[in-house]
Amino acid sequence: MVVLGVDTSLRSTGYGVLSVEGSRFRALDYGAIRNPPKLPVSACLKNIRAKIAGLIAAHAPNMLSVEGVIYAKNAATMLVLGEARGAVICAAADADIPVYEYEPRRVKMAVCGNGLAEKLQVQRMVKTLLALDELPQNDAADALALAICHAHSNSILSSRTPL
Amino acid sequence: MVVLGVDTSLRSTGYGVLSVEGSRFRALDYGAIRNPPKLPVSACLKNIRAKIAGLIAAHAPNMLSVEGVIYAKNAATMLVLGEARGAVICAAADADIPVYEYEPRRVKMAVCGNGLAEKLQVQRMVKTLLALDELPQNDAADALALAICHAHSNSILSSRTPL
Repeated sequence: MVVLGVDTSLRSTGYGVLSVEGSRFRALDYGAIRNPPKLPVSACLKNIRAKIAGLIAAHAPNMLSVEGVIYAKNAATMLVLGEARGAVICAAADADIPVYEYEPRRVKMAVCGNGLAEKLQVQRMVKTLLALDELPQNDAADALALAICHAHSNSILSSRTPL
Repeated sequence: MVVLGVDTSLRSTGYGVLSVEGSRFRALDYGAIRNPPKLPVSACLKNIRAKIAGLIAAHAPNMLSVEGVIYAKNAATMLVLGEARGAVICAAADADIPVYEYEPRRVKMAVCGNGLAEKLQVQRMVKTLLALDELPQNDAADALALAICHAHSNSILSSRTPL
């Protein structure tokens, strides 16, 4: 099974492609889709969708794992986050790949055993779990953690509904 | 010039294709992209993007005109609206068509001469301005009104920045 984890935001969307064979996890690719600060929103969304579509074409993931949104942010932030999510979900939907979402607390629990883990802890645990040579950058680590969380949750997948 | 007006929402996105020759406006197509209440979000977004891409392919609009968002709604509503907007903007960006947004008050002013006009007034004025045989349905009327507003605003376009 291959899981594509995506930590969505307009200016820096993290991604992580995880190969899962039983309990063996391997990172096939990870990084961030960067959009410069002054790039117009429409160009950002085009870039996000194209890059996610490219990852899907390259790795043929069975599903996407995205972050469940905490509704604590302000309305303008929520709108922009929604637009970026729309670009990501469109790329998955066009390839008929289901999208599952996981709350940040659950992702941290799956990776660190602590739902309140700090960002650095997540980066370190992702590095250890996937035997990476380097500490993955923040957004990439979160994306890989989302993929790991989905892989851990797979046994109870039948009880979950994709987006 | 051809303007595609889009009144975005997840379950019923209105669209209106307007041909503009000087001060002569003509509706080339209008209607709504309906998504049934229980259709998953990803399927809704796929449908919205595909339909908008289809309208772009059929009518080759020079630009899109979308509703400027009023940040009065709750966070969950904003996220979903953002996702739907993401699908619309992706379709435009993939075809390299600029997207302009206009606040509802400005659209009503452009069409009815009254920024606080009721929905029915907008429908009636759109019917009259475009010499339609029937009263356009709500979402389609709003979309045509967005296109009309953009056409009216065209002379000051140079001062506006697309999304």
